[in-house]
Order: sequence, then C-alpha cells, then structure tokens
Amino acid sequence: MKLLEDRIRKDGKIKGKDVLKVDSFLNHQMDIELIDQLGEEFFRLFGDSDVTKILTIEASGIGIACIVARHFGVPVIFAKKNKTKNIAGDVYTSQVESFTHGRVYDIIVSKEFLQPEDRVLLIDDFLANGAALQGLIKLVNDAGATLVGAGICVEKAFQPGGDLIRSMGVRVESLARVKSLSEENGVEFCD
Amino acid sequence: MKLLEDRIRKDGKIKGKDVLKVDSFLNHQMDIELIDQLGEEFFRLFGDSDVTKILTIEASGIGIACIVARHFGVPVIFAKKNKTKNIAGDVYTSQVESFTHGRVYDIIVSKEFLQPEDRVLLIDDFLANGAALQGLIKLVNDAGATLVGAGICVEKAFQPGGDLIRSMGVRVESLARVKSLSEENGVEFCD
Repeated sequence: MKLLEDRIRKDGKIKGKDVLKVDSFLNHQMDIELIDQLGEEFFRLFGDSDVTKILTIEASGIGIACIVARHFGVPVIFAKKNKTKNIAGDVYTSQVESFTHGRVYDIIVSKEFLQPEDRVLLIDDFLANGAALQGLIKLVNDAGATLVGAGICVEKAFQPGGDLIRSMGVRVESLARVKSLSEENGVEFCD
Repeated sequence: MKLLEDRIRKDGKIKGKDVLKVDSFLNHQMDIELIDQLGEEFFRLFGDSDVTKILTIEASGIGIACIVARHFGVPVIFAKKNKTKNIAGDVYTSQVESFTHGRVYDIIVSKEFLQPEDRVLLIDDFLANGAALQGLIKLVNDAGATLVGAGICVEKAFQPGGDLIRSMGVRVESLARVKSLSEENGVEFCD
C-alpha cells in the first residue's frame, strides 16, 4: 500500500539492519487518520470473508484493531499478556516469545469471547518472526473458530515469520512488506 | 451517560464490593459501536477545548482512546509500561502503582511526542484509585504541556481517585460514576 510505504519512508527510523521504528505514527504516537485508511484497505481485502471478530494482542495491536474493526462492524478481542485478578480462570492460553523484550510470556483470551461459530481476522502492527501470530492462531484453533486470515501493517519480509505463517495455510495480507533495511540506503520494499 | 450505565447494568459482572468486570464490552472484548458513542460524548464535553493530543496508558486505554480520537481529529499517544529496545532514551517517565496487579511500574512517553504547545486530553477506561491518571498527569506536566482534562468511561466513585484528581484542579468527566457495588443488589450509580 503506497500510502503506508510513503509514510514509512518519510517518518520511519532505521537502526542497524533489523529495527524499523514507526513509533511516530503507528505504535507509540498513533496517526488515527492514517490508521483509518489502513482499516479501509483491510476491509477491501477481507470485507467479503464474513468476519465476526477481530483478534489482536496487547499492546500496540489494540488501537489499530479498533480502528480497523469500525470498518467491519465487529467487536475486537485483545489477547492479554498477564493474568490479572480481573480475568477468570476460563481462558484459552498460549505462549509467545518476544524477541523485542527477550522473554517468553503467556497470552490469554476468555473462552466466552471466542466461539466455534466465530470467523476471526487477526490484526497486528508488525510481522517479523511470527511468534505473536502463532500464539493468536493457537487461541483461534483451541476455540474451534475459523481463521479468516491475518492483516498486518508492516511485514519484515527478510525475517521468517511471513513465510512460516503462510506455509501453515493462513492468508496473510501485509500492507507494507519490507525487503531490507539499511541506515545508509533506507527502506527497500518488496514489489 | 445512560447508554453506558444501562450496558453496565446489563453486562457488567460484580465480584464482591470492589470489582466490576466490563470485559465483555469495554476492556477485553470491545464493543466498537458502543465505544464510538462514548467518543461522541467525550467530544461533546471536550470538543471546544482545542485538544491537540489524546494521551492514554497501555493496555486497555488504547483502543478507547483511538476510537475517541477520531472524533477530535488528533493523534493518540499511549504511555508504555516497559522500556523496550525500540524506545529511545529520551523519554518522560513516572511511576504508577497498580492495585489490580499488585506492583509498581514505570510508564514512559517519548519526549518528541509531548510538546509545550500541546493541549492534552487524558482518556482511560477506569478511574479507581487515580494512580494511572496521576502518572499521566506528571508526564504532561513534565512536558510543559497543557492538561485539558480527563475523560473516563467508568469511575468507581466509592474509591478515592476521582476526588483526588479533581482536588488537583483537573477537570474529570466520567461517563458512568459507580456509587456502590453489591453482588445482591447490583450497581448503584451516582445521580
């Protein structure tokens, strides 16, 4: 999606060959008007898939998922990273390895919100190693719900997550696919 | 706001005298259509205050803040709870005590996103002890920005946060103010 690629070229910050910071518009400060246009694009891609729920993972996926969900007219569920007093025991759970934070954590979703008749679209800001998506896919499978696909804002196509998730038969639509990063030459996108 | 009070009466779950769970529509599964109407109400209340940024705290505030921000046409910033590799050192920081999780954590906002000329509206799902709001207020003050007020979905008016924050001279607008909770008699709202 040219709009997002242009914005990444303009405001993204590259650190080394791995890190692309988009925190001025996507995942710390959030440009709601931009994200609303991403939501429109996700709806163009998945609007005929009879989505009943959008599932994401805290924290940076939540705001994007909510803006996207307006276009679909469906609720958002966000998988929580820590078990709190306010969550009952009746949850689906899976483990996610965070490469950013260097640790493994549990994610949970209350069973009452994911039902076998649900058709679930996953939404997240980044796809890199695919660990978060794999965790979310397990929650959907455990619920016996139907996975419609995954809508990703920025895919780091030079990392293995995209290939991995697609090889599982999951439809992945990434609005910007980064081929390479370099502090000297900037961002190169896949064709 | 009657719409929200009615929804809390219908779908809120009470545990003891303290805990009100609204996780089927507000902070785990999110009813985007409802939250959009809350956003309209926050805009009615704060729409003439020249808000330039909406500030919230991860995780459950983010989605609400994003939906609210559409009505204001301004960006959202969410204070992050953990320092990750992807956040630069140049941050405002404050400490927040979580009564739900039973621990103290740091929250941070990158300095580049909060400027002295900003007029900031705080948005959060709950106001109970006021710890999260106090942390956010410190970030706004440290930035030298103007605090317009705080828009809260559910205030537990039997806990000290609301009085505390209002006594600091901050305008707090809560869409539902819970006077008392009881498993036998349900929710009582303030007049």
